[in-house]
Amino acid sequence: MKGYFISIEGTDGSGKTTQVQKILDYFTQKGLPVVFTREPGGTPIAEKIRDILLDGSHTALCSTAEILLYAASRAQHLEEKILPAIQEGKVVLSDRFSDSMVAYQGFGRGLDISWVEEVNAMATKGKMPDVTIYLDISPEYGIMRKKTDSEHKLDRLEQEALEFHQRVYEGYQYLWQKYPHRIHRVDATQSVEEVFVQIQKILDSLFEV
Amino acid sequence: MKGYFISIEGTDGSGKTTQVQKILDYFTQKGLPVVFTREPGGTPIAEKIRDILLDGSHTALCSTAEILLYAASRAQHLEEKILPAIQEGKVVLSDRFSDSMVAYQGFGRGLDISWVEEVNAMATKGKMPDVTIYLDISPEYGIMRKKTDSEHKLDRLEQEALEFHQRVYEGYQYLWQKYPHRIHRVDATQSVEEVFVQIQKILDSLFEV
Repeated sequence: MKGYFISIEGTDGSGKTTQVQKILDYFTQKGLPVVFTREPGGTPIAEKIRDILLDGSHTALCSTAEILLYAASRAQHLEEKILPAIQEGKVVLSDRFSDSMVAYQGFGRGLDISWVEEVNAMATKGKMPDVTIYLDISPEYGIMRKKTDSEHKLDRLEQEALEFHQRVYEGYQYLWQKYPHRIHRVDATQSVEEVFVQIQKILDSLFEV
Repeated sequence: MKGYFISIEGTDGSGKTTQVQKILDYFTQKGLPVVFTREPGGTPIAEKIRDILLDGSHTALCSTAEILLYAASRAQHLEEKILPAIQEGKVVLSDRFSDSMVAYQGFGRGLDISWVEEVNAMATKGKMPDVTIYLDISPEYGIMRKKTDSEHKLDRLEQEALEFHQRVYEGYQYLWQKYPHRIHRVDATQSVEEVFVQIQKILDSLFEV
């Protein structure tokens, strides 16, 4: 079996963390070697870049530096972790990949979309996930659900106003419509179990051939 | 008086640190407000990026991530420190700026020069120093002089083989010939005093009009 690259995407509070665990269990039960990773981060160097990006005190971080840091983190992550695992025949599951940059930096921060895609292409050298699972939930549901959880400490990105997350959401709608073959949309307003039933259908169609 | 942006460039061991101090004294004596800064780094966030770049344990850092980190550091440095100081009418002196990326990442690491210049343009939005002082000394003189100083602990870049520094040197020769109006070459094999006499001539021509 050849390696496979899956990303999971969605606005904050879309339930990615819960579904990631279920997807990992799915592959383990199937006896397929799976590697989980996340962006930004995924390797020791990329995690240090992640720390700079998510540090709540970094209010002075300018949007150009921010996008270049995301790109640097992605380049390192791909080179050091994702590509070697794929070459070893493993399934790689990444919590966020390049779509997040288009949604968050492009739409969220209002940077030029074609410029963001250019930076992305520099970082990835054109390598994209084979399949992307997009958990579709509007920010009113998603981020607000997370914000009212008193035990959850908000990081810098989560502190951003709801309007920011609405623009991010528009970004995901744009991406989903632009890449219908790669991006599989799942209605994430449903229960955890119902969402996973939909994800499982997608995975079955890919791995039960 | 309008603000002014000066960078000082050269291979490791070219004597930049010593000459920087003399240049700062020059402006102080003239009563001109001067701000010193350096790359990579220059602001708290950019210094954190610098730490990642210069950490000797980061042997896994891939060349794409490296250049994007330099670019991120530069974007933040320019936006947060250099441009505001120029707008306040100050003279900004930066130890290294975008020429270093062409010399070190482009020539040194063997990345495509036009690609490096593209990343540079992304980071700087085309803003370049008004004048660059280039301390010209071959790596046989420069880096080797530093390496034999037993009290000096070599960082990751300095550990690179001499061949790397020879390619960097070729990069500076290329830049100097490509931008003869901006880049002023100074023979850095001379004594500290002789080198500064040359630098002072350049500064006098700019600031004694």
